[in-house]
Formats: sequence, structure tokens, C-alpha cells
Amino acid sequence: MSKNKTTIVAEPGKQEAFIIREFEAPRELVYKAFTDPKLLPRWVGPCDMKMKIDVLEPGDGGRWRFIHTTKDGHDFGFHGVCHEATAPERLIRTFEFEGLPERGHVVLETAIFEALPGDRTKVTIQSVFRSVQDRDGMIMSGMEKGVVESHEKLDELFEKELQLK
Amino acid sequence: MSKNKTTIVAEPGKQEAFIIREFEAPRELVYKAFTDPKLLPRWVGPCDMKMKIDVLEPGDGGRWRFIHTTKDGHDFGFHGVCHEATAPERLIRTFEFEGLPERGHVVLETAIFEALPGDRTKVTIQSVFRSVQDRDGMIMSGMEKGVVESHEKLDELFEKELQLK
Repeated sequence: MSKNKTTIVAEPGKQEAFIIREFEAPRELVYKAFTDPKLLPRWVGPCDMKMKIDVLEPGDGGRWRFIHTTKDGHDFGFHGVCHEATAPERLIRTFEFEGLPERGHVVLETAIFEALPGDRTKVTIQSVFRSVQDRDGMIMSGMEKGVVESHEKLDELFEKELQLK
Repeated sequence: MSKNKTTIVAEPGKQEAFIIREFEAPRELVYKAFTDPKLLPRWVGPCDMKMKIDVLEPGDGGRWRFIHTTKDGHDFGFHGVCHEATAPERLIRTFEFEGLPERGHVVLETAIFEALPGDRTKVTIQSVFRSVQDRDGMIMSGMEKGVVESHEKLDELFEKELQLK
């Protein structure tokens, strides 16, 4: 099990948040895990939900939609569009949670993949929100649990993938 | 000539800016002017540049790219993807100026179209930036001149369009 921890930074009063995490895998593989329709369902989402890809168009301008399903069959949808996909260094996309009372609370997400010595990788995801309230609502929704559990599943996935080589 | 003025709001230290403008035209027509490939080149951009649409895919998930050309033939490109196009009330898209020294300085733009009494319309465009520096750079670039001149051209376009009816 990896000893890497997920850090979430949300300074008071700002309309942005950062998720920072290192992984024991080379940058090309980490980028692939964030973009490959075969790998994504194996790690994205909390442990007690199943994740399914509804739409995932690759590359700049592509649309995406993921569905997370609880054990009792309740669906949570997320969707957006990809502004930029520059392998293996950067992804910029929009993100919207479909479970909110109204549409339009969109987030601009930028994921930066940095190669570290020893075939390790640092991922920094900046989320920019339309308001401080939107950001605080996302943080309060229990997003941290989902993010931390996702990253732990991703650690396991990398262990398996790298052992296969 | 319309007496409506363009207001640009950029509070110090925030990573967002607002452009607010009223128009002497009904909401459906204003929304159309912001989305129709025949109308856009007639008003978008500063008076001393020609605007050309390179790409404009309609609706949610569509890509767009506009080119503004100076009198001496210098091109400025802008592009992004459309997260949401809900006629006649809301457009949410990404926006990137291609003339910056590096890619990735993307803006999340939300345009809200409000119907006012007397077949008038209020447009509020929120731009959310990846940093305060990105926002201040955009403001300092002389963006205000281009926005004000665009809106004055749009006033004239509405006068002509509405007289035709």
C-alpha cells in the first residue's frame, strides 16, 4: 500500500481549490489512468459506488459523462467538455455535478502531471468555481472521501499494472 | 444610437470579472446574436479588426474558434468549448486567447440573458480565471475597448434588424 497522501487545499474566501497527490508510477501511465476508458472505471469514485462511463470523447473538444451508482441503485451523474488534452502533461476540462437543484454550477478543472525522479508523478488538480459558495458546497458535500478513496484505488491499480511488466 | 453603456466589474484580488450590458432588443434576438454564425462577425471584436469564424459547432459540447485580423494582416485567435447552450437564457463556455506566451490560461465564461420589460435584455457575462494575474492581464490588455466597441456595433445591428420587421 502506498504511503502517499492526498492533500486538498481550499483557502478561505477563494473560488478555487487544489487537489495534490503523488503516485508511484511514471507520468505516461498516470496520464493514461486519467484518460483511458478501460482504466477510469477501475479507480474513479468512492469505494461504495460503481462508476460507469456514459460518454468519453477523446482529445480537445471532447464531451464526457460519468455515472456513479450506489449499492441501492441511486445514480449520480457528472459531465463536461474537454478544453485541452495534452498528453502526458495537462488536462483542462469543465465539470458539473448533475445532482444540484439547478444547472449552471460549472467548475473549470486543470490537471497538471509532473514527472518526479524515480519514475514517480505528482498530480495537481486546480478547480476554479463560479463562486466561493459553489466551492464550499463541493467541499462540504463529502468530496474528500471520494477523492481519497479514488487515489487509494489508483495506487492499487498502479501496483498491479507495474507488476505485470 | 443607444445610450446603454457597458460596465466591467473586476474587484481587486478576485479571480473573476463581470461584463454587464443592456440592449434594446428582445432576449431571443440577443441570444441569437451571441450564437448565430451569420450575426457574430457583424459585431464581435474591435472596430479596427475583421472577425472571422474558423469553427462554431452549435450546442452543448460544441467547439468554437474565432480569428480577429488587424488592418495590416496580423491574426489573433481565440478558441474554446461550449459546456452549455440553453436558448435563450444561458451560455457557458471556455475561452482561451492564443496570443499568450504559453497555453493553458483558460477562462470559464457564463453569459446570462435576462428579459427586461419593453422587449429589452440585460446580458451579464461572468469570466472566471485560473488566477488573479490571468484576470488582471486580460483587463490590462485593452479588452475593454474591444468589448465596448463590440457592444456599440451590436446596438447598430439590433437597430437595423428591428427596423426590418
